[in-house]
Amino acid sequence: MSETAPIRVTVWSEFRHEKKNPKVAAIYPDGIHETIAKCLREQPDFQVRTAWLDQPEHGLGGCVLDETDVLVWWGHMAHGELSDETAAAVQRRVLEGMGFLALHSAHYSKPFKALMGTTCSVKWRESTDKERLWNIAPSHPITRGIGEYFEIPKEEMYGEPFGIPTPDELLFISWFTGGEVFRSGAVWQRGHGRVFYFRPGHETYPTYHHPQVRQVLVNGVRWLRPAVCIQDACPNSPPLEPLPEDTEASDRPVVGFK
Amino acid sequence: MSETAPIRVTVWSEFRHEKKNPKVAAIYPDGIHETIAKCLREQPDFQVRTAWLDQPEHGLGGCVLDETDVLVWWGHMAHGELSDETAAAVQRRVLEGMGFLALHSAHYSKPFKALMGTTCSVKWRESTDKERLWNIAPSHPITRGIGEYFEIPKEEMYGEPFGIPTPDELLFISWFTGGEVFRSGAVWQRGHGRVFYFRPGHETYPTYHHPQVRQVLVNGVRWLRPAVCIQDACPNSPPLEPLPEDTEASDRPVVGFK
Amino acid sequence: MSETAPIRVTVWSEFRHEKKNPKVAAIYPDGIHETIAKCLREQPDFQVRTAWLDQPEHGLGGCVLDETDVLVWWGHMAHGELSDETAAAVQRRVLEGMGFLALHSAHYSKPFKALMGTTCSVKWRESTDKERLWNIAPSHPITRGIGEYFEIPKEEMYGEPFGIPTPDELLFISWFTGGEVFRSGAVWQRGHGRVFYFRPGHETYPTYHHPQVRQVLVNGVRWLRPAVCIQDACPNSPPLEPLPEDTEASDRPVVGFK
Amino acid sequence: MSETAPIRVTVWSEFRHEKKNPKVAAIYPDGIHETIAKCLREQPDFQVRTAWLDQPEHGLGGCVLDETDVLVWWGHMAHGELSDETAAAVQRRVLEGMGFLALHSAHYSKPFKALMGTTCSVKWRESTDKERLWNIAPSHPITRGIGEYFEIPKEEMYGEPFGIPTPDELLFISWFTGGEVFRSGAVWQRGHGRVFYFRPGHETYPTYHHPQVRQVLVNGVRWLRPAVCIQDACPNSPPLEPLPEDTEASDRPVVGFK
Repeated sequence: MSETAPIRVTVWSEFRHEKKNPKVAAIYPDGIHETIAKCLREQPDFQVRTAWLDQPEHGLGGCVLDETDVLVWWGHMAHGELSDETAAAVQRRVLEGMGFLALHSAHYSKPFKALMGTTCSVKWRESTDKERLWNIAPSHPITRGIGEYFEIPKEEMYGEPFGIPTPDELLFISWFTGGEVFRSGAVWQRGHGRVFYFRPGHETYPTYHHPQVRQVLVNGVRWLRPAVCIQDACPNSPPLEPLPEDTEASDRPVVGFK
Repeated sequence: MSETAPIRVTVWSEFRHEKKNPKVAAIYPDGIHETIAKCLREQPDFQVRTAWLDQPEHGLGGCVLDETDVLVWWGHMAHGELSDETAAAVQRRVLEGMGFLALHSAHYSKPFKALMGTTCSVKWRESTDKERLWNIAPSHPITRGIGEYFEIPKEEMYGEPFGIPTPDELLFISWFTGGEVFRSGAVWQRGHGRVFYFRPGHETYPTYHHPQVRQVLVNGVRWLRPAVCIQDACPNSPPLEPLPEDTEASDRPVVGFK
Repeated sequence: MSETAPIRVTVWSEFRHEKKNPKVAAIYPDGIHETIAKCLREQPDFQVRTAWLDQPEHGLGGCVLDETDVLVWWGHMAHGELSDETAAAVQRRVLEGMGFLALHSAHYSKPFKALMGTTCSVKWRESTDKERLWNIAPSHPITRGIGEYFEIPKEEMYGEPFGIPTPDELLFISWFTGGEVFRSGAVWQRGHGRVFYFRPGHETYPTYHHPQVRQVLVNGVRWLRPAVCIQDACPNSPPLEPLPEDTEASDRPVVGFK
Repeated sequence: MSETAPIRVTVWSEFRHEKKNPKVAAIYPDGIHETIAKCLREQPDFQVRTAWLDQPEHGLGGCVLDETDVLVWWGHMAHGELSDETAAAVQRRVLEGMGFLALHSAHYSKPFKALMGTTCSVKWRESTDKERLWNIAPSHPITRGIGEYFEIPKEEMYGEPFGIPTPDELLFISWFTGGEVFRSGAVWQRGHGRVFYFRPGHETYPTYHHPQVRQVLVNGVRWLRPAVCIQDACPNSPPLEPLPEDTEASDRPVVGFK
């Protein structure tokens, strides 16, 4: 876990909308994952690969997860097609230390829901809303270089209540033209790994070309870098201090306390 | 959700050790669930029923969960035998509002793990340790009537690190003779329901006859009472304020922001 | 601290704007405190008194604070005129168990700032904004009976970042016409007492006549009721377990560890 | 706030016990601050200076605080002699971004208490207790290189309840021979700065020569490094979206809502 080693990032997406909807294909011709990966590859210390739903084992088999420091996840229309095994493997790796960046409709992905333990439900509307994301944590590494707010001219609306556990830190709150608000950037520690949810990114809008969205992605990956890799264990532990002898036979009451 | 209505409690346990181990049967002749239920029935405003693993649908089918305000859970040797359907139904009900009191080795039960999203692992030792639980939240309703600490003469040791998300509030920290510490009482909001983990209760010790343990159980059930019952929804929501017209065809850039 | 005893509420305000600004006097002829007190007195189990800045000891001398379960605070133009002694006494009482409800510009009051430890600064604008408060914690007792949101036709805008520690729970997020958002309802445990900040209430708008604002005030007072009254202490404590004899003279290294 | 710039550390202590108590002087001949400073100076990227109570302006006048990234604080017998002005200046700097490492009895220092807003009281005993600090956050940067626990052969006991707000993250829990537990390592975000409380360090024991204590100090300073320096402001903010015209004269109700 050297701090000077490259950060190994895997960008995962469903890669379905891009094949079915020409409007999406026009914005993300090689897939949302590839647009995001290209952005991340501009960082000299990031090693970036991609994976998608329709690959064998969803592109996450073999050593991929074990060799991933930070997993970026975009899914929407086919959450249910991810195998339970892969979802569990992602969760396990986060608990060991891997960072997990859940984007937009990944609020409903199997790994995110498993890590949160809650419904993760939202209100939503696909329309002409403008989204303004207020930076409420200007000293958090993820908001570095982001000003007091930034705007996305057109985005899907997500509204509260958002069915998540209280975040460890809340980074962004969105204002939407249509009158709603949303906790659009939030982080949680889960086991030895960090989780970052970042709201923007509906497939029919060019959100991942937006400079401040891209800045947040880069900052997010950097912040999600693991500090450790600790595998789960539930050890039987010998005492560190002397224990009393077992006196049960003679003087320990079987039932009841005075 | 009237505050004067009775609190409907279901006490669930595996009811296996009691049938196999005469030592456990001597302490809990009708099962751990029945000892706990008897304690809770002393409260005139509690309506208490019991359920156990080997009943059809684990005793939680039909309307049982829907008619349960607070579910008390003790499991240990057979977590894996609980059906995934029942585990999911318990989780769903907590997210709607039902309170969940996870006792001792229920840290590894399916519903608790699903609600936490983490490993929930611990260190452990079955020996002659004394456990002293320090009350670190003397103004929390769950510690009402508990002094600054209480002792259990002999208990299984659980040690840190405990693989849970940071609790919303930490109520008890245990000191063990053998040199360990543990976050023995902790609470989390999950969806519209509350979760309380309370550590003591190894089956070979008479812990659920202990007066302060029983006080904590009563306090816990009271605090876990639901305030609402809200079912999951993810609604498409019309705007509350006027939206701009869709100008996409003419002037919205397909790719890129300046 | 019986749960059936009345809740003793003291509503404090500066009572200055009402005397100087006819517009404010028209809305709150007997002072903001009196309008709020009248609302709270509709609850049969509330015992409500009022106090204001220009009374001797700011109306909080003698036994007033000791006999107050919940203190409601509205201040704006004269925060600096509150004596440091009174501010410290309020803080001390909260840490012992008294509830504290800080309203609107009380974000800058001495007691609230002392309890938070931070700047408590905001953005602000007095104009024609509508405020829509989204209820993001529908199962919290303070939002009981409040729907998914409510609107105030005209209010002063407060915008993020709000210079507070991360709240224990966030209850309301406001949307403002002019494009801002704000954490408008938030709670913190401080010592044995609870603190609730509730944003609305600029003196030139009739906000405390608003039915849902009044509902939140009633709910807030109820939730802020103390569970205990524990005075500060820092006791020298004898050991509960045998300690080793002091072997310092002979074998304890004075400097350095291996 | 370049990440490659040196970290400018100021180590502050009272420097009183060392002059009065030969036992303390034997352990810390140049003062506790100097022993800590020497340890920190082993890090090539740390620029370390010291300051103490009896210097003019407590050694923190002029540009010292403005040029300090991380302030390490040890105080015990003379908390009250620190001027209120200096305490306020330290608090202000933390809220702007400076890190603050409060050691041992600095739980009762003016700056720490001001940042917490609570009593910060503890139980205590000076005796022959051994302290074992359990690392409950093995992936936090502050616990890097610390194993699952470490022991201090003899330390003053601090016991719960510790009068602090719930920490953002709890890093260490101590076990004491005499039967107590304590939250010995805890962190809080306050404004734009980070605060780390670390318990060990009674002046009559050689605690700051302990290798793992020293490792925690180094890790702590690194983690406390500021990300930003943002001065307090409470700006009047023009709207970002069109506001309705002011229609008050004609149709806004002065009192009451329907």
